[in-house]
Amino acid sequence: MAKVPYKTYLAEDEVPKAWYNVRADMKKKPAPLVDTATKDPLPAEVLERVFCRECVRQELDDTTQYIPIPGPVAEFYRMYRPSPLVRAYFLEKAIGGPAEIYYKFEGNNTSGSHKLNSAIAQAYYAKEQGLTDVTTETGAGQWGTALSMASAFFGLKCHVFMVKCSYEQKPFRREVMRTYGAEVTPSPSMETEIGRKINAEHPGTTGSLGCAISEAVEAAMKLPNARYLLGSVLNQVCLHQSVIGLETKAALEKLGVKPDVIIGCAGGGSNLSGLSAPFIGEMLRGEAKYRVVAVEPVNCPSLTKGEYRYDFCDTGKVCPMAKMYTLGCDFIPAADHAGGLRYHGMSSTLSELYDQKLIEAVALPQTKVFEAATLFARVEGILPAPESSHAICAAIDEARRCKAEDRKETIVFGLTGTGYFDLTAYAKFNDGQMTDA
Amino acid sequence: MAKVPYKTYLAEDEVPKAWYNVRADMKKKPAPLVDTATKDPLPAEVLERVFCRECVRQELDDTTQYIPIPGPVAEFYRMYRPSPLVRAYFLEKAIGGPAEIYYKFEGNNTSGSHKLNSAIAQAYYAKEQGLTDVTTETGAGQWGTALSMASAFFGLKCHVFMVKCSYEQKPFRREVMRTYGAEVTPSPSMETEIGRKINAEHPGTTGSLGCAISEAVEAAMKLPNARYLLGSVLNQVCLHQSVIGLETKAALEKLGVKPDVIIGCAGGGSNLSGLSAPFIGEMLRGEAKYRVVAVEPVNCPSLTKGEYRYDFCDTGKVCPMAKMYTLGCDFIPAADHAGGLRYHGMSSTLSELYDQKLIEAVALPQTKVFEAATLFARVEGILPAPESSHAICAAIDEARRCKAEDRKETIVFGLTGTGYFDLTAYAKFNDGQMTDA
Repeated sequence: MAKVPYKTYLAEDEVPKAWYNVRADMKKKPAPLVDTATKDPLPAEVLERVFCRECVRQELDDTTQYIPIPGPVAEFYRMYRPSPLVRAYFLEKAIGGPAEIYYKFEGNNTSGSHKLNSAIAQAYYAKEQGLTDVTTETGAGQWGTALSMASAFFGLKCHVFMVKCSYEQKPFRREVMRTYGAEVTPSPSMETEIGRKINAEHPGTTGSLGCAISEAVEAAMKLPNARYLLGSVLNQVCLHQSVIGLETKAALEKLGVKPDVIIGCAGGGSNLSGLSAPFIGEMLRGEAKYRVVAVEPVNCPSLTKGEYRYDFCDTGKVCPMAKMYTLGCDFIPAADHAGGLRYHGMSSTLSELYDQKLIEAVALPQTKVFEAATLFARVEGILPAPESSHAICAAIDEARRCKAEDRKETIVFGLTGTGYFDLTAYAKFNDGQMTDA
Repeated sequence: MAKVPYKTYLAEDEVPKAWYNVRADMKKKPAPLVDTATKDPLPAEVLERVFCRECVRQELDDTTQYIPIPGPVAEFYRMYRPSPLVRAYFLEKAIGGPAEIYYKFEGNNTSGSHKLNSAIAQAYYAKEQGLTDVTTETGAGQWGTALSMASAFFGLKCHVFMVKCSYEQKPFRREVMRTYGAEVTPSPSMETEIGRKINAEHPGTTGSLGCAISEAVEAAMKLPNARYLLGSVLNQVCLHQSVIGLETKAALEKLGVKPDVIIGCAGGGSNLSGLSAPFIGEMLRGEAKYRVVAVEPVNCPSLTKGEYRYDFCDTGKVCPMAKMYTLGCDFIPAADHAGGLRYHGMSSTLSELYDQKLIEAVALPQTKVFEAATLFARVEGILPAPESSHAICAAIDEARRCKAEDRKETIVFGLTGTGYFDLTAYAKFNDGQMTDA
């Protein structure tokens, strides 16, 4: 058999034409979003006040197995997809075998991560609905960048509430969004009621994701023709991200490779859900067996240390409640450089799959994660995002276990993005100043 | 005929196995490097005091048409090559036809540019020669980053002298280099004689490329087992960069497309030389005719305003003299954000081809270049480097000319890199603070 190439790209006629909805194959479905007061499941007409109509339909649809990718979204995907499935020959060599390692690299686009997969879908549905404006929040900045790019593409005005400390510390992220025509406001701002309230109650606060979400929701409600878009956690986002897993599976099948372990970092859960969905579908249908591993930071261990119960999705408690593994909506993670993994909860879909023991979880300390990131950068030539580096680290651990046990397993992990805007974190690590506390 | 795909990747067995040496097909060869005192051509044994042996051999070889890419270099290339040849459907749509536009995208690697193509070759030859250390200078940072990555791969210690103002303004570039294990020193430093001299004569100076080159050369001479590596201008670098043009040509042939115009930005000349070499080779052999266009900033117009004569390669006048289009080695370009295009001269190969009228040149002002960059980012989804944006801008100009003349021409340009580390420049443009002065 020919040696597996370093990179496998699907041809344009091999790319997925539809997203895969793993909920359709789940006998026990993820629990629905409920009203914070009545605890009743929220009907579409209520959710549509905040979210786009089609996104709400997808949010609530737990029976349709495949949902077609609309033409303009597929067209946009062609701009940066299919992403490569890379055989990590150099990493394998550094570890010394016998495991075979693959990674799906989602970072080769200007947003720098997989977030664009859902941003373009949500922006498309907003445009289709005749909206003119969209609002969102961003912490680390990947999602805000992705939505700015998607909005520019469809001619939507994008309003991003950026957590103030990120706004100040990451001026370059902010500038990318501005280049794509987005209006970026540090949160808490004086432009919303909730922002003014928080500023009055906590003078000098540098903000939080919870506060930025609340401001973005308020702004969407007040603008004449806008909705709020969210970059993770929700079922619709996991659905759009299934394109990662579908491409991965198609490429592996093309190579005749069956994975043993599938690894992804998990913050809100959209990346791991997207990467693993088609494989978990096979498990749900009794067609195959895999190990699926969620990797989270020890500083924000929602799956490994959280409780499975209904909780608020945001710190401000303005959003509906979701049943999920949660550390509590008031949980403040210790300082950690993986900004995208600092969410207190986990997507309902992934939480339910974890509860059904279809996925495992592991929590890793950040210094070990940055050691793995540095090794990976040097041997594989890609400077990874801190979030993605959690998956790298777990993959290396698995490969070392294989070496110790002399087992030739096939490991696939998701490399969600690049670390080009995370160099303050790398500097801290390079200077020996990073701790795990 | 099937529609041309958005992206064309060569398969691993289709990638170039050898670099193309355009000098072999030139009847009138580029003029040799000469001794600054005697003006005699420099023999290999003198050049080898500064440069690696094999690099010197390639520098002086103007007769061998194809030079094999060594195995380990080809192996490294597989990590990030082949780069995609992209059909710019979205840009074509924004312009409104009828021109067909393609670009070769070299930015999908952590160095963020094409520089890695020569860095890995030079690092390999250094390793093969038994060296332990390499030295270089970097201004904007792309070359320093590329050489840091290449050195890490072969286990060489890399010493980078980074122009002090860049060192201070671009801490993130510096941090990428450090992550790859490089030692980055702001120049002028107190670690070399010339650095101490310059610091004494010009207290508080923020440095220049010329000074950094002089320090890197001195450091290479003083370290027990080191040589100096350079990222552009030299024949050897143009040779290594021919991999860009060879891949581009192979991909176009696969698609059955013959270009009319080939466009590249030109600072030292390695990018345009690399992109255009195989096409110019066809012209030299009388097999085809193309327009090849070099794009430079109006603030540093070495081809369009320079003189073709022998000049010093560096401001410090420690390097040999080269015959080239030059603005004079004391030329200080006005402030311009395309740091990679601020060189006073132009590679001897490209200069000679320009003198033979095989290439054209155009100079563009930076505000117009950033307008083109912003349009490109929004429609094609890639935030381009300021240097690369010169080629984008010229390609758009050509496409608009085609529209005005209703001519369906095929335009190919080189997108050398991404602008993720150039956001200070974008901010200035976004704020309306950028001028052409």
